[in-house]
Amino acid sequence: MNTAPDRDATGAEHVPAPVVFFLSDSTGITAETLGNTLLTQFPGQRLERRTIPFITTVEQAREVVAVIDRLAAAGPRPIVFSTAVNQDIRTILAQSGGHFVDLFGAHIGVLEQALHASASGEPGKAHGVGDAIRYQSRMTAVEYAIEHDDGQSIRALERADLILIAPSRCGKTPTAMYLALQHGILAANFPLIEEDFARGELPRPLQPFVRKCFGLISLPARLSQVRHERRPGTTYASMAQCSYELRNAEEMYRLNQVPYVNSASMSVEEISATILQRMRL
Amino acid sequence: MNTAPDRDATGAEHVPAPVVFFLSDSTGITAETLGNTLLTQFPGQRLERRTIPFITTVEQAREVVAVIDRLAAAGPRPIVFSTAVNQDIRTILAQSGGHFVDLFGAHIGVLEQALHASASGEPGKAHGVGDAIRYQSRMTAVEYAIEHDDGQSIRALERADLILIAPSRCGKTPTAMYLALQHGILAANFPLIEEDFARGELPRPLQPFVRKCFGLISLPARLSQVRHERRPGTTYASMAQCSYELRNAEEMYRLNQVPYVNSASMSVEEISATILQRMRL
Repeated sequence: MNTAPDRDATGAEHVPAPVVFFLSDSTGITAETLGNTLLTQFPGQRLERRTIPFITTVEQAREVVAVIDRLAAAGPRPIVFSTAVNQDIRTILAQSGGHFVDLFGAHIGVLEQALHASASGEPGKAHGVGDAIRYQSRMTAVEYAIEHDDGQSIRALERADLILIAPSRCGKTPTAMYLALQHGILAANFPLIEEDFARGELPRPLQPFVRKCFGLISLPARLSQVRHERRPGTTYASMAQCSYELRNAEEMYRLNQVPYVNSASMSVEEISATILQRMRL
Repeated sequence: MNTAPDRDATGAEHVPAPVVFFLSDSTGITAETLGNTLLTQFPGQRLERRTIPFITTVEQAREVVAVIDRLAAAGPRPIVFSTAVNQDIRTILAQSGGHFVDLFGAHIGVLEQALHASASGEPGKAHGVGDAIRYQSRMTAVEYAIEHDDGQSIRALERADLILIAPSRCGKTPTAMYLALQHGILAANFPLIEEDFARGELPRPLQPFVRKCFGLISLPARLSQVRHERRPGTTYASMAQCSYELRNAEEMYRLNQVPYVNSASMSVEEISATILQRMRL
């Protein structure tokens, strides 16, 4: 086997990018998330990423190790992030030729000491159905969020845990959906429009529920850009209109003591974490 | 200060449950997820959980440490999961009186060795906006999923990355929403109904896109239970009807070579990871 690096026409060596594996006996979501956060500490690295979820048997673990070993023999040693819970599977994965980063096993010892107990060794599932009642509440919340998207229904607003309000395109819908899906929160969302600003008060259906309201604003330039993508060249998307709506929305939040956040440079996850914290949900 | 444990009428000691902290300089999502997975190894423990996100200054870190230290002085030592990236903040958090589980720092050394590079020390964001184009694609996908929920629109099906099909209440909607929100996948979902089974073919609008289809089935008892919650005592919710629809749906998937999965005991995260893997999305 030719293991010398290839050379291109300029004579530069073609070193293949190291492969990063995210391995899990469940969905692989945690391995990807924490692994990628760790890798952000090494910017500018060329890396190839592969997620292998649902490694639930020692045979599957051995197959994965064979893949890693082939890569390790032919090029740079792969980096292997694992959240596998099962001890037998972890032991096999640890024996591969890759750099093994055991995101789960590294911490069991501290916890055994802290809790004066031994780890059960049973597979735990961060992203499984888990508590069936809690899970069902998330599914119910998704339906509630769809039904109460963009002020489509004012039915059952009294059941809402949260009512997101904002001018169009500030991020109400994805935030409501995220809070429903991840946290089982009954989140309605309601647009603020010109008529509301002209009247200078919250939309009537929301007035009894002002304590459930949370507002979003954005930056005029950002909002205008997002609106232009949807309705290019319209008044709706103009800087003047965006500035007007944002200024009035912020004033309405202040007058009604509705907590709010500027979502312009925030992800839905960040907006959601902020809302959970501020509304003590 | 009285530090003796309280006793109730039976003389049993009231030992307060240890407090588990999930600390982060970002949303806290990863700390919660991995921390809770680790804790599933210690079932039956009474624990109180607190998430503190957005710890971005050393002052905030010191305030959190003060809270932990007060608890440690009065009762069992808290357990502290941290995904803080910033070295200064990590150093302060590590000095608290709690059991410190550094989910981030524990692995930096291995990665520095693997990548022949030093960690940048810059805060990385697993759940930030990150790549703005990728982020925008997730937001667009959420809108697409809402617009194409439950067969409401057959417009722009050619743009779909995925069309989820199933009888009512098998989990199409939350799965489509999850794939949109987390992965930016344009996921439509379409119900299979009696008329489709009577005709013995996929709904007409889907026929040109059969390669994009993925099917869900469930168990009759599970489906009947879920339907009873929504429409108690109806034919729709009866075991006979659920069995009939599920049997016919499965046959339709087979005939049309549509891949499918039984979602009865799976979470949306598990269903989604399975679909991503099977459809190579």
